Amino acid sequence: MGKRLIVIGGVAAGMSAAAKARRVDREMEAVVYEKSPYISYAACGMPYFIAGDVADYLSLLARTPEQMAKQGVEVHVRHEVTAIDPDTRTVTVRDLAGGREFTQGYDRLVIATGARPVRPPLPGLDLEGVFVLRSLDEGRALRRFLVDSREHRPQRAVVLGGGYVGVEMAETFRRLGLEVKMVIRSGKVMRAALDDDVRGLVEEELACQGVEVVMGKPVVFEGSRRVEAVVVENESESGNEGGRYPCDVALLGIGVRPEVALARAAGVALGVTGAIATDGASATNLPDVYAAGDCAEVFHLVTGEPAYIPLGSTANKQGRVAGTNAAGGEATFGGVVGTMVVRVFDLAVARTGLTAAQAQALGYSVRAVMIRAMDGSHYFPGTAPIHVKLVADEETGRLLGGQIAGRRGVAKRIDVLATALHHRLTVVDLQRLDLSYAPPFAPVWDPILVAANVAAR
Amino acid sequence: MGKRLIVIGGVAAGMSAAAKARRVDREMEAVVYEKSPYISYAACGMPYFIAGDVADYLSLLARTPEQMAKQGVEVHVRHEVTAIDPDTRTVTVRDLAGGREFTQGYDRLVIATGARPVRPPLPGLDLEGVFVLRSLDEGRALRRFLVDSREHRPQRAVVLGGGYVGVEMAETFRRLGLEVKMVIRSGKVMRAALDDDVRGLVEEELACQGVEVVMGKPVVFEGSRRVEAVVVENESESGNEGGRYPCDVALLGIGVRPEVALARAAGVALGVTGAIATDGASATNLPDVYAAGDCAEVFHLVTGEPAYIPLGSTANKQGRVAGTNAAGGEATFGGVVGTMVVRVFDLAVARTGLTAAQAQALGYSVRAVMIRAMDGSHYFPGTAPIHVKLVADEETGRLLGGQIAGRRGVAKRIDVLATALHHRLTVVDLQRLDLSYAPPFAPVWDPILVAANVAAR
Repeated sequence: MGKRLIVIGGVAAGMSAAAKARRVDREMEAVVYEKSPYISYAACGMPYFIAGDVADYLSLLARTPEQMAKQGVEVHVRHEVTAIDPDTRTVTVRDLAGGREFTQGYDRLVIATGARPVRPPLPGLDLEGVFVLRSLDEGRALRRFLVDSREHRPQRAVVLGGGYVGVEMAETFRRLGLEVKMVIRSGKVMRAALDDDVRGLVEEELACQGVEVVMGKPVVFEGSRRVEAVVVENESESGNEGGRYPCDVALLGIGVRPEVALARAAGVALGVTGAIATDGASATNLPDVYAAGDCAEVFHLVTGEPAYIPLGSTANKQGRVAGTNAAGGEATFGGVVGTMVVRVFDLAVARTGLTAAQAQALGYSVRAVMIRAMDGSHYFPGTAPIHVKLVADEETGRLLGGQIAGRRGVAKRIDVLATALHHRLTVVDLQRLDLSYAPPFAPVWDPILVAANVAAR
Repeated sequence: MGKRLIVIGGVAAGMSAAAKARRVDREMEAVVYEKSPYISYAACGMPYFIAGDVADYLSLLARTPEQMAKQGVEVHVRHEVTAIDPDTRTVTVRDLAGGREFTQGYDRLVIATGARPVRPPLPGLDLEGVFVLRSLDEGRALRRFLVDSREHRPQRAVVLGGGYVGVEMAETFRRLGLEVKMVIRSGKVMRAALDDDVRGLVEEELACQGVEVVMGKPVVFEGSRRVEAVVVENESESGNEGGRYPCDVALLGIGVRPEVALARAAGVALGVTGAIATDGASATNLPDVYAAGDCAEVFHLVTGEPAYIPLGSTANKQGRVAGTNAAGGEATFGGVVGTMVVRVFDLAVARTGLTAAQAQALGYSVRAVMIRAMDGSHYFPGTAPIHVKLVADEETGRLLGGQIAGRRGVAKRIDVLATALHHRLTVVDLQRLDLSYAPPFAPVWDPILVAANVAAR
């Protein structure tokens, strides 16, 4: 019999780790414990499931326990790992359905416990109609609440929080015909992700689509059984005094925190971000214990510092690295550059690296340019404006970050900038890139080149 | 008065050079001679103008002489430069409208004479209905021939040549309701650009859309006044004996050659490709004489050899470099990696670097992988299959080229691979890229990463 790998958590990172470990070492025993009823569910797809784009929630499940069994991975859903003992190399597992508890030994352990949404202890948080999106069951409940119950069809939604989940859910509510208000503490949509100029384009799109953005933070949810209003406090001195926003449904999307209680209790070291610290091999401070996904830190290649940026794409990569190393192979996870894209109604907005504000805060002498160009040849039907912002180090010309907003070709254009960040290219390097050109897809000077030409002046 | 720059040719490279020179040196006198009636016309847009996507041919003109005059560039259309005398630093110019000839001195000269389509001396080439697309007037004539003359509306088209112009024009004819046959000497669509496996996807799309591809080369165009048939010879031993293809319109698109007669007569050195040899500064062998665009060679960064790859995007970049240096600035054109994208009906197909066949011919030990993935999350509506092929050096893992075919996100995905080629990344480097992810735009493992994962095994 081979070594036994135990994986705690059966979503992106955990399932990637287990599957990859089995591919690297065919003799390895791979056991996954997942406390929810589902594995490999695509949390990122929930706004689209709730909007009705995805008819069946089952299609959000990328893999089933039965499929994993065929790859030699033993999956136990509704099983929660309640303790890790690194000395005896055992985990304590509770079978949530059966109620029994047992221990099991491991040779290698991958912690992939994910993240949980922030739920401040606000009065009324438990009212019907107040949702905090994370698990698939919560998503299903929200979908039912919005469209399946005929008698109390919600008309007004308040989204609390302006991150990408907030933005996506604002779109979802709007597309389902609800009035939508976004309440954001800073008053700024995607505050950390974007500079003000690019944010302006997102806010314009939201306004066009009838989404109102107000500044404030929730203090109480009012209602008897169902939510009837959110009372909001405004900490700014702008004169806006907060207020009471009537609503039939409220969504709390004010961020997530890494799920690290189990790991911490076992002596796994956390990093400065509060997530589990790992090295390039996804290893923790404990021997033969790896961590991956939304519970773990990542190395940010632009800042050279650890960062907490939970994303499905990163979780999969990190899980694959953890699984490879846990199985005796060799892999390293280089790190991230902070790439992100989100659809905001008809607009796509993407970013990578540092914003100008972040670069300034880190002490860079910043050269930032934003250009407006067309996303295809000017004469081609369907061609639309696109904005590209580049952030560079004034002294060296090194690209530090980029932001793009437009209708088409945004997501994959940001990837050119992400690639540039990975390899420390300058704006002059960008200018020289032989990027694809054809009237339907790009103008003869791709918007990235236009921006680079301006930045290199 | 400042120095005088003369630019021969007023399309992409020439106009870029003149405009840029004036921005670098405000004192410089910039004079452009263009023999056609138009400057800055978008030749790449012609298939879409002919198809009716672009209503007015004037919108294919990116700049007018009047606009250029405002930037201090003096433009003379219908003026042909007939000789360059590098000893006296003069050019001889013929005013094609007025008929007079004159000479003018230059301090700096930029040759941007472009390319001309190959027109083999075939019987019947001058028949009505036989077109060779290059100038805007030819495009307008074809448009009129196809749709504006009611009495002899063409029903059957034969496209001779399988390059991207041939493919785009096959689409254009088909969309205008004609029966379309492509006659290609090798029988292979986009022969040099694609490997057989990716070409198969293009041929499948063409077949689906009712375009028939046959092997052969034209030997005679038959007809009394108008073309009635193309007689084709087949050099292969496949048993296909060539044939006679009745048609009402025939388009010859068997490639272009650099327009170098003028330069060669003046002693400008040509390179191995037959186009004008230039260094990284776009300078020729003659002092103060630069060349840019479709008449010039480019340096291919993957092969390390000169190449002839005439493209509007390259012409603009090279023209900008020539203009900068001609005006006393400093700029270099690094070279190209052979990036190209073309729309083939509903398919987009893109390529960069070397094909597997080209890499093998150059002596590389080739590792080539092709994967099929989805272009967005599997559950997202509208998500479609996409194929990514990577060509790498087996020994070092260095990426040598890539090909992508799919419905969405093809053009800008190839740009990630182009960026990788510019900076000699390996497939392991590719695997690590923090590429953008969101259900509408990419799956959690972008197809590029999926291909890199396979290639890195």
